[in-house]
Amino acid sequence: MADEVVLLDFWPSPFGMRLRIALAEKGIEYEYKEEDLSNKSPLLLQMNPVHKKIPVLIHNGKPVSESLIALQYIDEVWNDKAPLLPSDSYLRAQARFWADFVDKKIFEFGRALWATKGEEHNAAKKEFLDYIGVLQRELGDKPFFGGDTLGFVDVTLISHYNWFLVYEKFGNFSVEAEHPEFIAWVKRCMEKESVSKSLPEQEKVYDYAMFLKKKFGIE
Amino acid sequence: MADEVVLLDFWPSPFGMRLRIALAEKGIEYEYKEEDLSNKSPLLLQMNPVHKKIPVLIHNGKPVSESLIALQYIDEVWNDKAPLLPSDSYLRAQARFWADFVDKKIFEFGRALWATKGEEHNAAKKEFLDYIGVLQRELGDKPFFGGDTLGFVDVTLISHYNWFLVYEKFGNFSVEAEHPEFIAWVKRCMEKESVSKSLPEQEKVYDYAMFLKKKFGIE
Repeated sequence: MADEVVLLDFWPSPFGMRLRIALAEKGIEYEYKEEDLSNKSPLLLQMNPVHKKIPVLIHNGKPVSESLIALQYIDEVWNDKAPLLPSDSYLRAQARFWADFVDKKIFEFGRALWATKGEEHNAAKKEFLDYIGVLQRELGDKPFFGGDTLGFVDVTLISHYNWFLVYEKFGNFSVEAEHPEFIAWVKRCMEKESVSKSLPEQEKVYDYAMFLKKKFGIE
Repeated sequence: MADEVVLLDFWPSPFGMRLRIALAEKGIEYEYKEEDLSNKSPLLLQMNPVHKKIPVLIHNGKPVSESLIALQYIDEVWNDKAPLLPSDSYLRAQARFWADFVDKKIFEFGRALWATKGEEHNAAKKEFLDYIGVLQRELGDKPFFGGDTLGFVDVTLISHYNWFLVYEKFGNFSVEAEHPEFIAWVKRCMEKESVSKSLPEQEKVYDYAMFLKKKFGIE
Protein backbone atom coordinates (compact mmCIF):
# COMPACT_ATOMS: atom_id res chain seq x y z
CA MET A 1 0.00 0.00 0.00
CA ALA A 2 1.30 3.44 -0.93
CA ASP A 3 1.76 5.98 1.84
CA GLU A 4 -1.11 8.37 2.31
CA VAL A 5 0.23 11.76 3.35
CA VAL A 6 -1.90 14.79 4.13
CA LEU A 7 -0.67 18.21 5.26
CA LEU A 8 -3.00 20.51 7.18
CA ASP A 9 -1.47 23.91 6.64
CA PHE A 10 -2.04 27.64 6.18
CA TRP A 11 -0.16 29.30 3.34
CA PRO A 12 1.76 32.10 5.21
CA SER A 13 2.90 29.83 8.05
CA PRO A 14 6.70 29.44 8.31
CA PHE A 15 6.01 26.32 10.34
CA GLY A 16 4.00 24.82 7.48
CA MET A 17 6.49 25.94 4.83
CA ARG A 18 9.27 23.81 6.30
CA LEU A 19 7.18 20.67 5.96
CA ARG A 20 6.33 21.57 2.34
CA ILE A 21 10.06 21.98 1.65
CA ALA A 22 10.98 18.70 3.37
CA LEU A 23 8.26 16.75 1.55
CA ALA A 24 9.43 18.25 -1.77
CA GLU A 25 13.10 17.45 -0.98
CA LYS A 26 12.15 13.86 -0.22
CA GLY A 27 9.91 13.64 -3.30
CA ILE A 28 6.82 12.62 -1.34
CA GLU A 29 3.41 13.17 -2.87
CA TYR A 30 0.84 14.53 -0.48
CA GLU A 31 -2.52 16.19 -0.29
CA TYR A 32 -2.33 19.82 0.82
CA LYS A 33 -5.33 20.99 2.83
CA GLU A 34 -5.58 24.70 3.48
CA GLU A 35 -7.05 25.57 6.87
CA ASP A 36 -9.17 28.60 7.66
CA LEU A 37 -7.77 29.48 11.09
CA SER A 38 -10.81 31.56 11.99
CA ASN A 39 -12.97 28.50 11.34
CA LYS A 40 -10.84 25.44 11.97
CA SER A 41 -11.89 22.21 10.28
CA PRO A 42 -13.20 19.25 12.29
CA LEU A 43 -10.22 17.31 10.88
CA LEU A 44 -7.70 19.77 12.39
CA LEU A 45 -9.46 19.69 15.77
CA GLN A 46 -9.51 15.90 15.65
CA MET A 47 -5.87 15.54 14.56
CA ASN A 48 -4.39 18.14 16.92
CA PRO A 49 -6.82 18.30 19.85
CA VAL A 50 -4.14 19.55 22.25
CA HIS A 51 -2.83 22.64 20.45
CA LYS A 52 -5.41 22.95 17.62
CA LYS A 53 -2.66 24.41 15.44
CA ILE A 54 -1.31 23.87 11.96
CA PRO A 55 0.78 22.35 10.53
CA VAL A 56 -0.25 18.76 11.09
CA LEU A 57 1.28 15.99 9.03
CA ILE A 58 -1.08 13.03 8.72
CA HIS A 59 0.69 9.85 7.65
CA ASN A 60 -1.57 6.88 6.93
CA GLY A 61 -4.20 8.42 9.21
CA LYS A 62 -1.86 9.17 12.12
CA PRO A 63 -1.06 12.80 13.00
CA VAL A 64 2.25 14.41 13.88
CA SER A 65 2.07 17.97 15.22
CA GLU A 66 4.65 20.64 16.08
CA SER A 67 6.66 21.46 13.02
CA LEU A 68 10.19 20.60 14.16
CA ILE A 69 8.93 17.26 15.46
CA ALA A 70 7.12 16.59 12.16
CA LEU A 71 10.28 17.61 10.28
CA GLN A 72 12.29 15.01 12.19
CA TYR A 73 9.56 12.46 11.61
CA ILE A 74 9.68 13.05 7.84
CA ASP A 75 13.46 12.74 7.93
CA GLU A 76 13.36 9.49 9.90
CA VAL A 77 10.58 7.78 7.90
CA TRP A 78 11.78 8.77 4.42
CA ASN A 79 15.47 8.32 5.15
CA ASP A 80 16.51 7.04 1.72
CA LYS A 81 16.70 10.50 0.12
CA ALA A 82 17.89 14.00 1.03
CA PRO A 83 18.81 13.42 4.68
CA LEU A 84 18.17 16.55 6.76
CA LEU A 85 19.75 15.66 10.10
CA PRO A 86 23.40 14.50 10.18
CA SER A 87 24.13 10.91 11.16
CA ASP A 88 26.59 11.90 13.90
CA SER A 89 24.88 12.34 17.30
CA TYR A 90 26.82 15.45 18.24
CA LEU A 91 26.16 17.19 14.93
CA ARG A 92 22.52 16.16 15.22
CA ALA A 93 22.30 17.81 18.65
CA GLN A 94 23.88 20.94 17.19
CA ALA A 95 21.39 21.03 14.30
CA ARG A 96 18.50 20.66 16.76
CA PHE A 97 19.99 23.45 18.86
CA TRP A 98 20.16 25.91 15.96
CA ALA A 99 16.71 25.03 14.62
CA ASP A 100 15.32 25.68 18.11
CA PHE A 101 17.27 28.96 18.23
CA VAL A 102 15.77 30.04 14.89
CA ASP A 103 12.22 29.40 16.04
CA LYS A 104 12.76 31.11 19.37
CA LYS A 105 14.68 34.18 18.22
CA ILE A 106 14.00 34.89 14.55
CA PHE A 107 10.28 34.25 14.89
CA GLU A 108 9.87 36.06 18.22
CA PHE A 109 11.80 39.20 17.33
CA GLY A 110 10.58 39.19 13.73
CA ARG A 111 7.01 39.20 15.00
CA ALA A 112 7.81 42.05 17.42
CA LEU A 113 9.01 44.12 14.44
CA TRP A 114 5.53 44.37 12.92
CA ALA A 115 3.32 43.71 15.94
CA THR A 116 4.82 46.10 18.51
CA LYS A 117 5.96 49.70 18.63
CA GLY A 118 8.07 52.08 20.73
CA GLU A 119 10.78 50.60 22.92
CA GLU A 120 9.79 46.99 22.31
CA HIS A 121 9.96 47.56 18.55
CA ASN A 122 13.36 49.25 18.76
CA ALA A 123 14.76 46.50 20.96
CA ALA A 124 13.43 43.88 18.54
CA LYS A 125 15.17 45.57 15.62
CA LYS A 126 18.55 45.31 17.33
CA GLU A 127 17.94 41.76 18.54
CA PHE A 128 16.70 40.56 15.16
CA LEU A 129 19.75 41.83 13.28
CA ASP A 130 22.11 40.60 16.01
CA TYR A 131 20.62 37.12 15.77
CA ILE A 132 20.92 37.09 11.98
CA GLY A 133 24.58 37.92 12.62
CA VAL A 134 24.89 34.99 15.05
CA LEU A 135 23.42 32.68 12.40
CA GLN A 136 25.72 34.06 9.72
CA ARG A 137 28.74 33.32 11.94
CA GLU A 138 27.42 29.81 12.60
CA LEU A 139 27.09 29.27 8.83
CA GLY A 140 30.67 30.46 8.32
CA ASP A 141 32.16 29.42 4.98
CA LYS A 142 29.82 26.51 4.41
CA PRO A 143 27.33 26.73 1.52
CA PHE A 144 24.54 25.49 3.83
CA PHE A 145 24.12 25.00 7.57
CA GLY A 146 23.86 21.32 6.65
CA GLY A 147 27.29 21.50 4.93
CA ASP A 148 27.22 20.92 1.17
CA THR A 149 23.52 20.18 1.09
CA LEU A 150 20.32 21.64 2.49
CA GLY A 151 19.88 20.39 6.07
CA PHE A 152 17.62 20.62 9.10
CA VAL A 153 18.65 24.17 10.06
CA ASP A 154 18.48 25.42 6.46
CA VAL A 155 14.90 24.16 6.04
CA THR A 156 13.88 25.60 9.41
CA LEU A 157 15.42 29.01 8.78
CA ILE A 158 14.56 29.55 5.11
CA SER A 159 10.90 28.94 5.98
CA HIS A 160 10.97 32.25 7.89
CA TYR A 161 12.47 34.13 4.96
CA ASN A 162 9.28 35.10 3.18
CA TRP A 163 8.35 37.22 6.18
CA PHE A 164 11.58 39.20 5.80
CA LEU A 165 9.96 41.89 3.59
CA VAL A 166 7.55 42.51 6.48
CA TYR A 167 10.41 42.68 8.97
CA GLU A 168 12.49 44.94 6.73
CA LYS A 169 9.65 47.38 5.99
CA PHE A 170 8.58 47.70 9.61
CA GLY A 171 12.14 47.62 10.93
CA ASN A 172 13.33 50.06 8.26
CA PHE A 173 16.49 48.08 7.52
CA SER A 174 17.94 45.90 4.80
CA VAL A 175 19.18 42.47 5.85
CA GLU A 176 21.30 42.37 2.69
CA ALA A 177 23.04 45.65 3.63
CA GLU A 178 23.67 44.44 7.20
CA HIS A 179 24.45 40.79 6.52
CA PRO A 180 25.22 40.21 2.82
CA GLU A 181 26.53 36.67 3.37
CA PHE A 182 23.25 35.71 4.97
CA ILE A 183 21.42 36.80 1.83
CA ALA A 184 23.93 34.88 -0.30
CA TRP A 185 22.84 31.80 1.66
CA VAL A 186 19.16 32.70 1.04
CA LYS A 187 19.85 32.83 -2.70
CA ARG A 188 21.55 29.42 -2.62
CA CYS A 189 18.47 27.99 -0.90
CA MET A 190 16.12 29.68 -3.37
CA GLU A 191 17.91 28.06 -6.30
CA LYS A 192 16.36 24.80 -5.15
CA GLU A 193 12.88 24.18 -6.53
CA SER A 194 11.93 22.37 -3.31
CA VAL A 195 12.37 25.72 -1.58
CA SER A 196 11.27 28.32 -4.14
CA LYS A 197 8.10 26.44 -5.05
CA SER A 198 7.14 25.89 -1.38
CA LEU A 199 7.25 29.54 -0.33
CA PRO A 200 4.62 32.19 -1.05
CA GLU A 201 5.56 35.58 -2.48
CA GLN A 202 6.94 38.08 0.01
CA GLU A 203 4.44 40.73 -1.17
CA LYS A 204 1.53 38.42 -0.44
CA VAL A 205 2.90 37.77 3.06
CA TYR A 206 3.29 41.52 3.54
CA ASP A 207 -0.36 42.09 2.61
CA TYR A 208 -1.32 39.35 5.06
CA ALA A 209 0.68 41.03 7.86
CA MET A 210 -1.12 44.32 7.09
CA PHE A 211 -4.44 42.48 7.29
CA LEU A 212 -3.45 41.03 10.69
CA LYS A 213 -2.40 44.45 12.01
CA LYS A 214 -5.78 45.86 11.06
CA LYS A 215 -7.69 42.87 12.39
CA PHE A 216 -5.98 43.02 15.79
CA GLY A 217 -5.99 46.82 15.93
CA ILE A 218 -2.18 47.14 15.95
CA GLU A 219 -1.35 50.62 14.68
CA MET B 1 39.91 6.66 26.71
CA ALA B 2 36.97 6.84 29.07
CA ASP B 3 34.28 9.41 28.38
CA GLU B 4 34.64 12.67 30.26
CA VAL B 5 31.23 13.98 31.17
CA VAL B 6 30.54 17.24 33.01
CA LEU B 7 27.14 18.69 33.89
CA LEU B 8 26.79 22.43 34.49
CA ASP B 9 23.64 22.66 36.53
CA PHE B 10 21.74 24.47 39.29
CA TRP B 11 20.08 22.29 41.92
CA PRO B 12 16.40 23.46 41.71
CA SER B 13 16.31 23.39 37.88
CA PRO B 14 13.78 20.92 36.43
CA PHE B 15 15.76 21.16 33.21
CA GLY B 16 18.92 20.04 34.98
CA MET B 17 17.15 17.33 36.96
CA ARG B 18 16.16 15.43 33.83
CA LEU B 19 19.77 15.15 32.74
CA ARG B 20 20.76 13.93 36.22
CA ILE B 21 18.03 11.27 35.99
CA ALA B 22 19.04 10.21 32.48
CA LEU B 23 22.72 9.98 33.38
CA ALA B 24 21.82 7.89 36.44
CA GLU B 25 19.52 5.63 34.38
CA LYS B 26 22.34 5.06 31.91
CA GLY B 27 24.90 4.54 34.68
CA ILE B 28 27.21 7.27 33.42
CA GLU B 29 29.71 8.80 35.82
CA TYR B 30 30.00 12.55 35.55
CA GLU B 31 31.27 15.61 37.31
CA TYR B 32 28.47 17.81 38.64
CA LYS B 33 29.32 21.51 38.66
CA GLU B 34 26.89 23.77 40.48
CA GLU B 35 26.47 27.18 38.87
CA ASP B 36 25.81 30.44 40.69
CA LEU B 37 23.30 32.00 38.28
CA SER B 38 23.88 35.49 39.68
CA ASN B 39 27.57 35.09 38.89
CA LYS B 40 27.88 32.67 36.00
CA SER B 41 31.17 30.85 35.59
CA PRO B 42 33.48 31.56 32.64
CA LEU B 43 33.01 27.88 31.73
CA LEU B 44 29.22 28.29 31.40
CA LEU B 45 29.60 31.46 29.30
CA GLN B 46 32.12 29.67 27.10
CA MET B 47 30.08 26.49 26.72
CA ASN B 48 26.69 28.14 26.13
CA PRO B 49 27.52 31.58 24.69
CA VAL B 50 24.16 31.86 22.92
CA HIS B 51 21.71 31.36 25.79
CA LYS B 52 24.11 31.45 28.80
CA LYS B 53 21.81 29.00 30.58
CA ILE B 54 22.12 25.77 32.50
CA PRO B 55 21.99 22.85 32.07
CA VAL B 56 24.92 22.21 29.75
CA LEU B 57 26.18 18.70 29.21
CA ILE B 58 29.86 18.67 28.28
CA HIS B 59 30.94 15.42 26.67
CA ASN B 60 34.68 15.10 26.02
CA GLY B 61 34.95 18.89 25.97
CA LYS B 62 32.00 19.48 23.61
CA PRO B 63 28.84 21.17 24.94
CA VAL B 64 25.21 20.28 24.36
CA SER B 65 22.67 22.85 25.56
CA GLU B 66 18.88 22.93 25.84
CA SER B 67 17.73 20.13 28.09
CA LEU B 68 15.47 18.14 25.75
CA ILE B 69 18.19 18.21 23.11
CA ALA B 70 20.79 17.07 25.65
CA LEU B 71 18.40 14.35 26.82
CA GLN B 72 18.13 13.01 23.27
CA TYR B 73 21.90 13.25 22.89
CA ILE B 74 22.43 11.17 26.05
CA ASP B 75 19.93 8.62 24.77
CA GLU B 76 21.59 8.39 21.36
CA VAL B 77 25.21 8.21 22.57
CA TRP B 78 24.65 5.77 25.45
CA ASN B 79 22.12 3.61 23.65
CA ASP B 80 23.16 0.29 25.15
CA LYS B 81 21.21 0.76 28.38
CA ALA B 82 17.82 2.14 29.51
CA PRO B 83 16.56 3.52 26.17
CA LEU B 84 14.42 6.61 26.69
CA LEU B 85 12.97 7.19 23.22
CA PRO B 86 11.11 4.34 21.48
CA SER B 87 12.67 2.80 18.38
CA ASP B 88 9.52 3.33 16.26
CA SER B 89 9.54 6.70 14.44
CA TYR B 90 5.89 7.45 15.11
CA LEU B 91 6.12 6.67 18.82
CA ARG B 92 9.31 8.73 18.95
CA ALA B 93 7.48 11.71 17.44
CA GLN B 94 4.71 11.24 20.01
CA ALA B 95 7.20 11.15 22.88
CA ARG B 96 8.83 14.35 21.61
CA PHE B 97 5.40 15.95 21.32
CA TRP B 98 4.46 15.20 24.93
CA ALA B 99 7.85 16.23 26.31
CA ASP B 100 7.48 19.55 24.50
CA PHE B 101 3.93 19.85 25.87
CA VAL B 102 5.18 19.31 29.42
CA ASP B 103 7.83 22.00 29.13
CA LYS B 104 5.42 24.47 27.54
CA LYS B 105 2.36 23.94 29.72
CA ILE B 106 3.38 22.48 33.08
CA PHE B 107 6.35 24.79 33.44
CA GLU B 108 4.58 27.91 32.17
CA PHE B 109 1.40 27.58 34.22
CA GLY B 110 3.24 26.17 37.22
CA ARG B 111 5.41 29.26 37.25
CA ALA B 112 2.37 31.52 36.95
CA LEU B 113 0.96 29.89 40.11
CA TRP B 114 3.68 31.33 42.34
CA ALA B 115 4.89 34.29 40.27
CA THR B 116 1.57 36.00 39.39
CA LYS B 117 -1.62 36.97 41.17
CA GLY B 118 -5.23 37.97 40.47
CA GLU B 119 -6.77 36.86 37.19
CA GLU B 120 -3.56 35.47 35.73
CA HIS B 121 -3.05 33.35 38.85
CA ASN B 122 -6.61 32.04 38.80
CA ALA B 123 -6.42 31.20 35.10
CA ALA B 124 -3.12 29.39 35.68
CA LYS B 125 -4.67 27.27 38.44
CA LYS B 126 -7.37 26.00 36.10
CA GLU B 127 -4.96 25.48 33.20
CA PHE B 128 -2.39 23.68 35.35
CA LEU B 129 -4.88 21.16 36.70
CA ASP B 130 -6.49 20.71 33.26
CA TYR B 131 -3.10 19.93 31.74
CA ILE B 132 -2.28 17.42 34.48
CA GLY B 133 -5.60 15.81 33.52
CA VAL B 134 -4.56 15.74 29.85
CA LEU B 135 -1.31 14.04 30.82
CA GLN B 136 -3.11 11.54 33.05
CA ARG B 137 -5.37 10.59 30.13
CA GLU B 138 -2.34 10.22 27.85
CA LEU B 139 -0.74 7.91 30.45
CA GLY B 140 -3.91 5.81 30.57
CA ASP B 141 -3.40 2.35 32.04
CA LYS B 142 0.31 2.19 31.33
CA PRO B 143 2.70 2.15 34.30
CA PHE B 144 4.87 4.78 32.58
CA PHE B 145 4.48 7.10 29.59
CA GLY B 146 7.29 5.03 28.11
CA GLY B 147 5.22 1.84 28.58
CA ASP B 148 6.65 -0.66 31.05
CA THR B 149 9.79 1.36 31.68
CA LEU B 150 10.74 4.96 32.38
CA GLY B 151 10.91 6.84 29.06
CA PHE B 152 11.54 10.26 27.54
CA VAL B 153 8.24 11.80 28.70
CA ASP B 154 8.53 10.30 32.20
CA VAL B 155 11.98 11.79 32.70
CA THR B 156 10.88 15.16 31.34
CA LEU B 157 7.75 15.35 33.46
CA ILE B 158 8.99 13.92 36.76
CA SER B 159 11.75 16.54 36.73
CA HIS B 160 9.05 19.16 37.28
CA TYR B 161 7.55 17.28 40.22
CA ASN B 162 9.66 18.72 42.98
CA TRP B 163 8.13 22.12 42.27
CA PHE B 164 4.64 20.70 42.89
CA LEU B 165 4.65 21.65 46.60
CA VAL B 166 5.18 25.26 45.48
CA TYR B 167 2.37 25.00 42.94
CA GLU B 168 0.02 23.31 45.44
CA LYS B 169 0.66 25.82 48.23
CA PHE B 170 0.25 28.87 46.00
CA GLY B 171 -2.60 27.33 44.00
CA ASN B 172 -4.30 26.05 47.17
CA PHE B 173 -5.07 22.66 45.67
CA SER B 174 -3.94 19.06 46.00
CA VAL B 175 -2.89 17.31 42.80
CA GLU B 176 -3.47 13.97 44.56
CA ALA B 177 -7.08 14.91 45.37
CA GLU B 178 -7.71 16.11 41.80
CA HIS B 179 -5.73 13.51 39.87
CA PRO B 180 -4.89 10.50 42.08
CA GLU B 181 -3.67 8.36 39.16
CA PHE B 182 -1.14 11.03 38.27
CA ILE B 183 0.30 10.81 41.77
CA ALA B 184 0.33 7.01 41.52
CA TRP B 185 2.58 7.49 38.48
CA VAL B 186 4.77 9.91 40.48
CA LYS B 187 5.20 7.26 43.16
CA ARG B 188 6.20 4.63 40.58
CA CYS B 189 8.85 7.03 39.28
CA MET B 190 10.08 7.82 42.78
CA GLU B 191 10.65 4.13 43.50
CA LYS B 192 13.56 4.35 41.09
CA GLU B 193 16.81 5.49 42.65
CA SER B 194 17.79 7.22 39.43
CA VAL B 195 14.84 9.54 40.04
CA SER B 196 14.62 9.88 43.82
CA LYS B 197 18.35 10.52 44.21
CA SER B 198 18.39 13.11 41.41
CA LEU B 199 15.66 15.36 42.78
CA PRO B 200 16.00 17.85 45.64
CA GLU B 201 13.51 17.92 48.51
CA GLN B 202 10.22 19.70 47.81
CA GLU B 203 10.60 21.81 50.97
CA LYS B 204 13.99 23.07 49.79
CA VAL B 205 12.49 24.01 46.42
CA TYR B 206 9.64 25.77 48.24
CA ASP B 207 12.14 27.83 50.26
CA TYR B 208 13.93 28.69 47.03
CA ALA B 209 10.66 29.86 45.41
CA MET B 210 10.02 32.07 48.47
CA PHE B 211 13.52 33.49 48.10
CA LEU B 212 12.84 34.25 44.40
CA LYS B 213 9.53 35.95 45.21
CA LYS B 214 11.28 38.20 47.68
CA LYS B 215 14.24 38.87 45.38
CA PHE B 216 12.01 39.91 42.47
CA GLY B 217 9.51 41.75 44.64
CA ILE B 218 6.59 39.44 43.83
CA GLU B 219 4.11 39.77 46.68
